[in-house]
Amino acid sequence: MIDIEANLSKTAKEMASVGITDNIRLGDDDSYVRIINQVLLPNELVYKNIYELEDAWWAVKKLEIRGAPAIGIFAGYMMYVQARKYAEFEYESFKEAFRKDKEYLNSCRPTAVNLSWALNRVFKIVEEHSDVKEIIGLLKEEAFRIHMEDIEMCANICEYGLSLLEEGDGVLTHCNSGPLATSFGTAQGPFLLAKARGINVHVFADETRPLLQGARLTSFELDRAGVDVTLICDNMASIVMKNGWIQKCFVGCDRIAANGDVCNKIGTSAVAILAKHYGIPVYSLGPTSTIDMNRPDGDHIKIELRDPEEIKTMWYEKPMAPETVKCYNPCFDVTDHTMISGIVTEKGIVYPPFDINLKKLFE
Amino acid sequence: MIDIEANLSKTAKEMASVGITDNIRLGDDDSYVRIINQVLLPNELVYKNIYELEDAWWAVKKLEIRGAPAIGIFAGYMMYVQARKYAEFEYESFKEAFRKDKEYLNSCRPTAVNLSWALNRVFKIVEEHSDVKEIIGLLKEEAFRIHMEDIEMCANICEYGLSLLEEGDGVLTHCNSGPLATSFGTAQGPFLLAKARGINVHVFADETRPLLQGARLTSFELDRAGVDVTLICDNMASIVMKNGWIQKCFVGCDRIAANGDVCNKIGTSAVAILAKHYGIPVYSLGPTSTIDMNRPDGDHIKIELRDPEEIKTMWYEKPMAPETVKCYNPCFDVTDHTMISGIVTEKGIVYPPFDINLKKLFE
Repeated sequence: MIDIEANLSKTAKEMASVGITDNIRLGDDDSYVRIINQVLLPNELVYKNIYELEDAWWAVKKLEIRGAPAIGIFAGYMMYVQARKYAEFEYESFKEAFRKDKEYLNSCRPTAVNLSWALNRVFKIVEEHSDVKEIIGLLKEEAFRIHMEDIEMCANICEYGLSLLEEGDGVLTHCNSGPLATSFGTAQGPFLLAKARGINVHVFADETRPLLQGARLTSFELDRAGVDVTLICDNMASIVMKNGWIQKCFVGCDRIAANGDVCNKIGTSAVAILAKHYGIPVYSLGPTSTIDMNRPDGDHIKIELRDPEEIKTMWYEKPMAPETVKCYNPCFDVTDHTMISGIVTEKGIVYPPFDINLKKLFE
Repeated sequence: MIDIEANLSKTAKEMASVGITDNIRLGDDDSYVRIINQVLLPNELVYKNIYELEDAWWAVKKLEIRGAPAIGIFAGYMMYVQARKYAEFEYESFKEAFRKDKEYLNSCRPTAVNLSWALNRVFKIVEEHSDVKEIIGLLKEEAFRIHMEDIEMCANICEYGLSLLEEGDGVLTHCNSGPLATSFGTAQGPFLLAKARGINVHVFADETRPLLQGARLTSFELDRAGVDVTLICDNMASIVMKNGWIQKCFVGCDRIAANGDVCNKIGTSAVAILAKHYGIPVYSLGPTSTIDMNRPDGDHIKIELRDPEEIKTMWYEKPMAPETVKCYNPCFDVTDHTMISGIVTEKGIVYPPFDINLKKLFE
């Protein structure tokens, strides 16, 4: 068995000392995967042991576990748990059962790239070997490896991110790409690493309407880790910048175009325009896998529109807008590359001109 | 008795045909004031008849009626209703009872300028006359006059505001200064006048966290009047501007400094900075009484901080942030005058340079 703790890099170990390391874990007897039920946050910190594949399917579907990297890690462990149930099968039956399970699990969020990526990765092991007992051992190793790779990728992003921060900095962040969504966090990870190293940063977390990831998740994670965090409404970003409280903005990314345009959670472009106005640098943090060199710019990224009820009724005791009123509820927006000071990846920080320097990153 | 409907100007009559004219009304037998209980909006449209001064006090305290001008109008009518109860008193006893009542009502929101202004105005009538029966008649007239003056002031602001709009314009607005807060509205009034004149404008209303005045009140008022309105979260202002859907921004004002700096609901400065970035003009609409020529700029306006629970728990079924997390919850921000294209008052539109042109307005 791979001992994750023992195999962590120095950076990852430091982050583990303050971060949330318990969001996904293989159960002690390998018969379940333990997750934090994120739907109940921030009111209740409830761990959930998932033994059955159907429960795993629902956990992803109901967003009990969310964040593309986290779902990939979860899927890796879950398929190992599942494979153990077929330990007495002949290879062909084992493969067939495993294949069915993988397809079933993949069906719960078909657009989540990391989910199908992780499932295909573990299925490849099944395809390339024929000894069921050996396969099960390899699946366990692979699950840990998927987890470890994500940890080390985050750790690298966090090191580069932290290199941008100075003692006493105020940093505005938007939405959540912390340890609940990844292993150790991208946009919020450097704050944990700063904490581990005794560097004081003051984080201002946008609540991030309508789904409130900033209020429910980011402020929970940072508060729990002992990072100094202040929650604000999205429309307060301007005043905290004007007050002189913000020296940098750290945001995540869902997709980055070849020219450096950043597609991220709705509201990110507003943060960046305000920051530019106040002379504050904005950094987008994420793995190189989010950089899409085949997409020249962000202009033609199709923006997912979501249910108006997320604005009008979700979370509330009573509806907060007339039933008949229209809503526009885009999930993402595109921040023009001219508003971005740097893109922080696991391979380093890319500075403008992005069209040239992103190309160099992949050479 | 003054017949408000009959005495309305042409503009006000047009607005009455589409606007909410029933937010404050003297009861038919003069024994009560009828208001819309705004706390129940947008879920229930409930009228409330207020007979007793104590109920009036609580109605203001509990924000069942809100908006500085609306509170002033309400107080005028309520003091007349109250005076009728003392019709059989001698003058001195009448005056003493009236004075006590006025001070009691004034105590419910001591910082609301319009409340004490209206109360002092009606008390002046009591002081300047000695025939109780005559006074009661004059108080009724004065109450109607306060209401009428607000209507005509709004109507003028709306005419000037509408002169800035063109058929098909998209207009972003923030918070609420519509007919629920005033008689006919300031920042949102021109949309009603446009509707009355068959001019199509497409309004995008920021929900305005944390108190959601945009969702609960502005979208309710406009939707009810048949104005095309789309509700968005505050962090979506950037994308609707980028989409090319916004030609103008109309915002209210709580206070305007002599240099044109605008203090208004939190988030207004963000709207203005975004609009400037996208080349969209921003207009601040309000009565000249909000312009404070003794205040050189907005730099030293003290910003009221409100309860963090408005961000963390208010409206929600369950708290949406950890109990221990800090919040910063300023009620207003200051928009720099360089972001403002024009200030729309009942006396006309003031354009930059504001330091010179605001002075001229008062000459």
